[in-house]
Amino acid sequence: MGYGIVLRTLGIILLGEAALMVPSWLMALYYKENDANAFAVAILASLFIGVCSFLIKPKKQIVGYREGVMIVSFGWILASAFGAIPFFLSGTFNSFIDAFFETASGFTTTGASVMTNIEIQPHGILFWRSFTHWLGGMGILVFTLAILPALGISTIQIFKAESPGPNPERLVPRVAQTAKILYSIYFVISLIEIILLRLAGMSFFDSFTHTFATMGTGGFSTKNASVAGFNSALIEWIIIVFMFLAGANFSLYYGVIKGKIKTLFKDTEFRFYCGIIFGSIVLIAISIRELYGFDWVKIIRDSTFQTLTIITTTGFATVDYDKWPEFTKMIMFLLMFVGGCSGSTGGSIKCIRILLMFKFVKREFHKLLHPKSVMPIRIGNSTVPWEIMRNVVGLVLLYAIIFVSVSLVLLTQGMDIMSSTSATIACLGNVGPGFAMVGPAMNYAALTDLSKVLLSFCMILGRLEVYTVLVLFVPVFWRD
Amino acid sequence: MGYGIVLRTLGIILLGEAALMVPSWLMALYYKENDANAFAVAILASLFIGVCSFLIKPKKQIVGYREGVMIVSFGWILASAFGAIPFFLSGTFNSFIDAFFETASGFTTTGASVMTNIEIQPHGILFWRSFTHWLGGMGILVFTLAILPALGISTIQIFKAESPGPNPERLVPRVAQTAKILYSIYFVISLIEIILLRLAGMSFFDSFTHTFATMGTGGFSTKNASVAGFNSALIEWIIIVFMFLAGANFSLYYGVIKGKIKTLFKDTEFRFYCGIIFGSIVLIAISIRELYGFDWVKIIRDSTFQTLTIITTTGFATVDYDKWPEFTKMIMFLLMFVGGCSGSTGGSIKCIRILLMFKFVKREFHKLLHPKSVMPIRIGNSTVPWEIMRNVVGLVLLYAIIFVSVSLVLLTQGMDIMSSTSATIACLGNVGPGFAMVGPAMNYAALTDLSKVLLSFCMILGRLEVYTVLVLFVPVFWRD
Repeated sequence: MGYGIVLRTLGIILLGEAALMVPSWLMALYYKENDANAFAVAILASLFIGVCSFLIKPKKQIVGYREGVMIVSFGWILASAFGAIPFFLSGTFNSFIDAFFETASGFTTTGASVMTNIEIQPHGILFWRSFTHWLGGMGILVFTLAILPALGISTIQIFKAESPGPNPERLVPRVAQTAKILYSIYFVISLIEIILLRLAGMSFFDSFTHTFATMGTGGFSTKNASVAGFNSALIEWIIIVFMFLAGANFSLYYGVIKGKIKTLFKDTEFRFYCGIIFGSIVLIAISIRELYGFDWVKIIRDSTFQTLTIITTTGFATVDYDKWPEFTKMIMFLLMFVGGCSGSTGGSIKCIRILLMFKFVKREFHKLLHPKSVMPIRIGNSTVPWEIMRNVVGLVLLYAIIFVSVSLVLLTQGMDIMSSTSATIACLGNVGPGFAMVGPAMNYAALTDLSKVLLSFCMILGRLEVYTVLVLFVPVFWRD
Repeated sequence: MGYGIVLRTLGIILLGEAALMVPSWLMALYYKENDANAFAVAILASLFIGVCSFLIKPKKQIVGYREGVMIVSFGWILASAFGAIPFFLSGTFNSFIDAFFETASGFTTTGASVMTNIEIQPHGILFWRSFTHWLGGMGILVFTLAILPALGISTIQIFKAESPGPNPERLVPRVAQTAKILYSIYFVISLIEIILLRLAGMSFFDSFTHTFATMGTGGFSTKNASVAGFNSALIEWIIIVFMFLAGANFSLYYGVIKGKIKTLFKDTEFRFYCGIIFGSIVLIAISIRELYGFDWVKIIRDSTFQTLTIITTTGFATVDYDKWPEFTKMIMFLLMFVGGCSGSTGGSIKCIRILLMFKFVKREFHKLLHPKSVMPIRIGNSTVPWEIMRNVVGLVLLYAIIFVSVSLVLLTQGMDIMSSTSATIACLGNVGPGFAMVGPAMNYAALTDLSKVLLSFCMILGRLEVYTVLVLFVPVFWRD
């Protein structure tokens, strides 16, 4: 095992984090608020530990599967731990567990919050809080679309299976090159959103922070009432559009830039994503029509916003959907399990896997009537290999096992069934808000420390596609 | 398609049902209650339609896969429809939908009831109601252990995969012979329970009816308060033992009779079944200890009874578990999805499939670290073929899809999430009681007609292992 290279790379991550905290520190200095010293200490701590780790001379230079897994898993945990320092030292949270929860929620683009009064916080803290979303979103794009394929892991194989025709659409194979293209796309879309939100009447500060939260499908807002606090239909529609974009596969945009707009509509997962969104909006709209006194303009806006905020796993709020009819709540609950497309910043199980589950069941039916026939499962023009199918089924089952186990633990901590199950999927799927005790008008502050630690772990587990983290707990992993 | 042979066999089923209604009719005559005429009409109607169908001369004499599926599915529906006549004509229910729901609930051994006051009903009606459980239980044993294997369908293949060593334990292959052995085992165990319940102080009438409900893992009682109405710890413990027996694989008893008691403890599914039961009792006992003021005798009895009544999908009540802590309710909710062993009268997904799901996930982990290795999934000494594994995964996914879809429909009928989801699994898994609106102290009477029809369908769907019924909806099935 190349522990040296792992430590060295983790050092680089910390050095990067130190640099990325600088804008928040400058903002703290500019606004002359009480959080500047907290950032200074956090930057110095990250720099010091980062440099120490970086100076390690690794014996082995190659990053294999196991080293990759360790770097990604520990990288996310370390970044959350050091990123929590400003929250803790500035007095935003009295408990380091709360500070860690909030930062892990930021980096994993979950958006579950333990902050009870957001609007009294200094600008530097709020900027850093939202910025973690944007960094986490970028990190996950590079992880799923550049690092995983380089390690030869399955997520990308789904993505490869997707590519139609003889000319595979996968991004330029080399990690660095791929990462660069992704950064650029992510950066440009973010820039457009910032400009549009500013034009729609948001301050520059709010435009930046809300763009960070939208593009990372995170969900932290600078208002206690979340996006509802701006009271602007235009802002809501802009955010709807960008949530939709952030929840789709970013490699498709590469195709669009190259002029192949058709590939967008040929993409099976993208069509499935659009289909679920459309269907959910219609069902929710019908279900809430009486509650809204048949005000269809508001019905459509609210049902569209809530559908997208949940399916993309963003978690912004414009209404307290916990007060909606039970049927609507069930739809929202189910959407939490779906999540965005593969290769997006969205979390949860992902559209492609849900689609494959349906295809799997359909195939079994045909097998009953034609037991001898060979019936491969197809996505677009490609056949999905059985190894991939098994991996997908395994992940979904594993998701179910973790979901049930964590919910049970939360129930022992005094939560009711709706709160515990929704909190679990909201964190595991990186959604943010759930129902009841953790509904959109509530937050995670009232939970016990054990619950917060467990849910922080779930966020990281969910963000890294479960296997990547859990494999660390298999003893064989550590044997040389 | 051999429609002739299908109709003729359905005729035989109706003739059998007519004969099986005779004891209830005699009881009605003996007690001189107002239900005798209702039974007479039902018997005559079943005889008449039965004879007409029986007289059909089939062109094709062979029962293939499709004919088998039709006979079993329509047989269960027809038996429920004709069995509902006494309930309807005697005035027990004013709506035929209610009568059908109650009878389908009986034959599928579900035990979900729409009867609001049980104790005022005449003896004949109550006897028939419980007798349907016993007949349904016997029917399902013959279906899963004799008919399905004869048709070469998967359930039994799991069962075959289970058999250790070179001498397969599957029952004597010919359907009639197998059925005869099963009848005998079922009959003898029932007889023992009747005697024990009588000795414990129940009336003969109650001993019979409660044995019917236990052995079929049904759950109908003759008391409004269910088994709690007898207020006897001894009776509860007797029923606990027989619920446990009814939830295990009946073919194991054949081995035990032949002197191979060891096979019982070598059986992987049986051990898994015992393990889940033990674990659940412990967790529930700990969870309710404060509520019970640390009265451990009562804690152990109640937690054991509730665990067995749910996992075996019987559904008797001794306490209103809907008032138990949320953690306990979640455990009970999960047990509803587990169900008994394959080859038992219990319903739901079944222990063997749940076990295989865990093995599937475990295998995927090892695959991550050893991608090249071949790792078959084993049960005991046998390898589970991939076709079986796929069938099992498909069934579990299908279960999830039906569960979600039906729950959504029930939500449009004015139910809340706990009520609708628990009602769905309680009917689909043939459990009986759920939570909230359909909790153990409530019943299904208040539901809308649409909900009752849909849930009746779910009971039959669940009882016949889903595929057997749903395949009728695949257009290809009907093409020659």
